Amino acid sequence: MTLDPKAYAVIMAGGSGTRFWPLSRQDYPKQFLSIVGDESMMSQTWRRCLALVGDPQRVLVVTGARYADLTREQLPDLPAANLLAEPEARNTAPCLAWTAAELQRRDPDSLMLVFPADHVIEDIDGMRRSAEAACAAARTGALVTFGVPPRYAETGYGYVEVAAPLDLHPEPPAPVRHVAAFREKPDAETAQQYVEAGTFLWNSGMFVWESRALLAAMEEHLPAAARAAEAMLAAADEAGRSAAYAEMPATSIDYGIMEQAQRVACVEAQFDWSDVGSWEALAELLPADDDGNFARGEVAALDARGNLVHAPGEKVALLGVEGLAVVRAGDVLLVARLDRSQDIKELRERVAAAGMKDTL
Amino acid sequence: MTLDPKAYAVIMAGGSGTRFWPLSRQDYPKQFLSIVGDESMMSQTWRRCLALVGDPQRVLVVTGARYADLTREQLPDLPAANLLAEPEARNTAPCLAWTAAELQRRDPDSLMLVFPADHVIEDIDGMRRSAEAACAAARTGALVTFGVPPRYAETGYGYVEVAAPLDLHPEPPAPVRHVAAFREKPDAETAQQYVEAGTFLWNSGMFVWESRALLAAMEEHLPAAARAAEAMLAAADEAGRSAAYAEMPATSIDYGIMEQAQRVACVEAQFDWSDVGSWEALAELLPADDDGNFARGEVAALDARGNLVHAPGEKVALLGVEGLAVVRAGDVLLVARLDRSQDIKELRERVAAAGMKDTL
Repeated sequence: MTLDPKAYAVIMAGGSGTRFWPLSRQDYPKQFLSIVGDESMMSQTWRRCLALVGDPQRVLVVTGARYADLTREQLPDLPAANLLAEPEARNTAPCLAWTAAELQRRDPDSLMLVFPADHVIEDIDGMRRSAEAACAAARTGALVTFGVPPRYAETGYGYVEVAAPLDLHPEPPAPVRHVAAFREKPDAETAQQYVEAGTFLWNSGMFVWESRALLAAMEEHLPAAARAAEAMLAAADEAGRSAAYAEMPATSIDYGIMEQAQRVACVEAQFDWSDVGSWEALAELLPADDDGNFARGEVAALDARGNLVHAPGEKVALLGVEGLAVVRAGDVLLVARLDRSQDIKELRERVAAAGMKDTL
Repeated sequence: MTLDPKAYAVIMAGGSGTRFWPLSRQDYPKQFLSIVGDESMMSQTWRRCLALVGDPQRVLVVTGARYADLTREQLPDLPAANLLAEPEARNTAPCLAWTAAELQRRDPDSLMLVFPADHVIEDIDGMRRSAEAACAAARTGALVTFGVPPRYAETGYGYVEVAAPLDLHPEPPAPVRHVAAFREKPDAETAQQYVEAGTFLWNSGMFVWESRALLAAMEEHLPAAARAAEAMLAAADEAGRSAAYAEMPATSIDYGIMEQAQRVACVEAQFDWSDVGSWEALAELLPADDDGNFARGEVAALDARGNLVHAPGEKVALLGVEGLAVVRAGDVLLVARLDRSQDIKELRERVAAAGMKDTL
């Protein structure tokens, strides 16, 4: 099987990336950082997408207008017309409605493969097989989500409950199933039940559908978004686009469309995946040094293990500490328990209250 | 009672201060740092001594030659002739033998009050009363040490076991007792017994004696030091002093003299005292902020308590951590458990092994 010849890759890069503060800032969110490997996540995502669809003309990026310059800088091969700069951040349903309308105009038979810019995927071959299966499913008119087999009882993700396989010919190179239900982030006990049941997958936030199928679902479930998407294409200038975008319902694609639509399928991801959602998640992705720490920068350690150090240019000495994130960026120094790294958002409120708002 | 009119204050400032790395460096040890208050410990010690003896001519500083410039810079009122620069570090007995010989030459009836430059004492009045009592005891020919009533079962100090009071008239303004024995750093159980017995005091490293009494004890117990001290005074130049000092036995005043001498007394210190021997000891001296942290620099904290932050010019965010030292100095960042801060020395070996020797 080969990838659908009318498939376009769409990189969603509008996230403001508060969870990697102080490395990520409001003006420089996570997707633009080189926190895994030497390349930014944006650039890595671009290369994966290019490997998948084969042509820069077939890769689109949708991001906030404030990040347009950074995007052009990091993706010099991105065609100018393929950068969709959102006038304002309004969650994922609006940007995908707009992108679908744009692709529908370019090619009524186009397929959209949607990837967030800040996920880590190493296995390109596995991703290709899964994408091929997803495209085949999308050609039946279904909205397809990628589900990741859970490796542990994560409570920070939503889950997709899957049912019977889709009847696809030829046999797709990755399992594709009907979706029984989308499940919100579970508590620990429920997450454990999901993992044990074997019919629940992590909802990854990656999707495949025909542009026309998404627009049809928008017409049905978010008609204001469908109208605003048309208005975006018709707008004569930036002011017109801003006015049109302001009419978009600020909701997520999951809540606004996937959980409402009738024809939804899930392809089981045949590749490694991390959304690198926290310093703790990052630590799991990085190789450990001889002392069991995950370090960027020079580190000397005595009885210190399992710490994530990100302090390029610094000399860091650790004594007796375990499971910490030690991060220095600009003139900000963060020392946090890795298992509290989901609370960075709340910490940022303290930081603002302490008069350090300019560091956010 | 007033202070003996022939009392001289001697500030011992030769310590290399490895325990406050990375703030203290080999070229900039602890006594020159402003870690408690806005003034360096050296400068604070100078002011205490001046308050005690009343005249800059009566304060001497003995320190390593490598620290002579720093000393002059921090103590602009120190008379040039009162700075004794050791050609090399050879522990405390040699520098005190030399200083005693020098004072003996200036005034055969002189008394020496010896204070390390890196201790913290706030209660000047209490210190004066204790010093007056110590001088009175020293005038009987005894070598007098200051003992600090133990506040807890510290295992990091030596102890002085005291016996019957000295028979002094008039009654001294602080208790003075004969010394039954000096005790090495005890284990935890022994330390607890010492505290409960009530007859053991922390050996503070502060002393009072007649110059002639110390020299006599040197003649008896460390004759090589007595000869080398005479040679120091007789030397015509720096080379001569270096040669003389090289003949000094490199031993401590406690081991070389106090533990050997017959006539030894202990005055019970009537003042607060800390040798600020570690980051942990420093944390105990600093006032806690609203979150229970001890901070220099801007700090925002969420569920973080009991941390010592010393990072002037940095913005520090703490999340979920307790009992840590977070220190930034130069381009070195230390994150250590406070209760491991006695192991900084061992950590420094790791730092050297990790190729960061230039930070020591």
